[in-house]
Amino acid sequence: MNLRDYIRDIPDFPQKGIIFRDLTPLLSNADALSFAVDQLATQFRTDHIDKVVGVEARGFIIGAALAYALHVGFIPARKPGKLPYKSVRREYELEYGVSILEMHEDAIKHGERILIVDDLLATGGTVSATADLVRSLGGDIVAYAFLVTLKDLGGIEKLGGSRVVSLLDL
Amino acid sequence: MNLRDYIRDIPDFPQKGIIFRDLTPLLSNADALSFAVDQLATQFRTDHIDKVVGVEARGFIIGAALAYALHVGFIPARKPGKLPYKSVRREYELEYGVSILEMHEDAIKHGERILIVDDLLATGGTVSATADLVRSLGGDIVAYAFLVTLKDLGGIEKLGGSRVVSLLDL
Repeated sequence: MNLRDYIRDIPDFPQKGIIFRDLTPLLSNADALSFAVDQLATQFRTDHIDKVVGVEARGFIIGAALAYALHVGFIPARKPGKLPYKSVRREYELEYGVSILEMHEDAIKHGERILIVDDLLATGGTVSATADLVRSLGGDIVAYAFLVTLKDLGGIEKLGGSRVVSLLDL
Repeated sequence: MNLRDYIRDIPDFPQKGIIFRDLTPLLSNADALSFAVDQLATQFRTDHIDKVVGVEARGFIIGAALAYALHVGFIPARKPGKLPYKSVRREYELEYGVSILEMHEDAIKHGERILIVDDLLATGGTVSATADLVRSLGGDIVAYAFLVTLKDLGGIEKLGGSRVVSLLDL
């Protein structure tokens, strides 16, 4: 299966000059979704992952399915004001502005082995912020997983030599 | 397994007088997440579901895991401005104000059998709006699935006799 066939290119979204890679056709196809999740899960079967951290909002989709496939827990890294319990937060710059992510301060126990998941790696700002939150709670980042990497945007470099698994480079 | 043990009650969130049911402990526990998804999947194994629709953002988590478990596609019902392709939208009232949901207009084919998923059923405003979007695209709503129903808030009545599966009443 070629997952590229399930990604729709949308010119000038969310702003002029950017080609948005729309993964909704991939997610909405039973075989493509299953194939993608299984391909990622296979990469981490022997890594003794404790928890998957998924980044709001699209990272929740692939992250939660992957957590279920690996039989591990799922932790949401959320936009500000959404989490009801005591939280840690991190401000970061992203491709189209500035944003904030939060995680519950008891979401990760010291030394837990964490897999950080998002649908797409662009500049890496969002997952770097997520990684900072995970580390601030004592989590050990085993790897990062994405469906797609936009390889010209330098996200991989921002993750500083960590293990990155991506199903597709665009 | 009693899933109630994994739900944390947070008083006065997001506003005074409301007890927020925090499901993050359930999601972050490997056995509880797995149990919850399997319990829901078991209910729909013979229903020939074509696609799961999950409501942004928390509905993405359980919805995507359930779609994967059922080997069906996943469709996000999103907050406004997030979807890059041609979309349909619905404005609705929810417990704490007014909101809008959108779906891609090609997300559902006429006659497809749809399972609508969210983490928690409260007043039913959000899932009713989602159901309207699904129907406007020609989808056939087979059932609604939730981890938790707040049974005093009247959400079930708002779904008008449809089949509702919920793992826990609070």
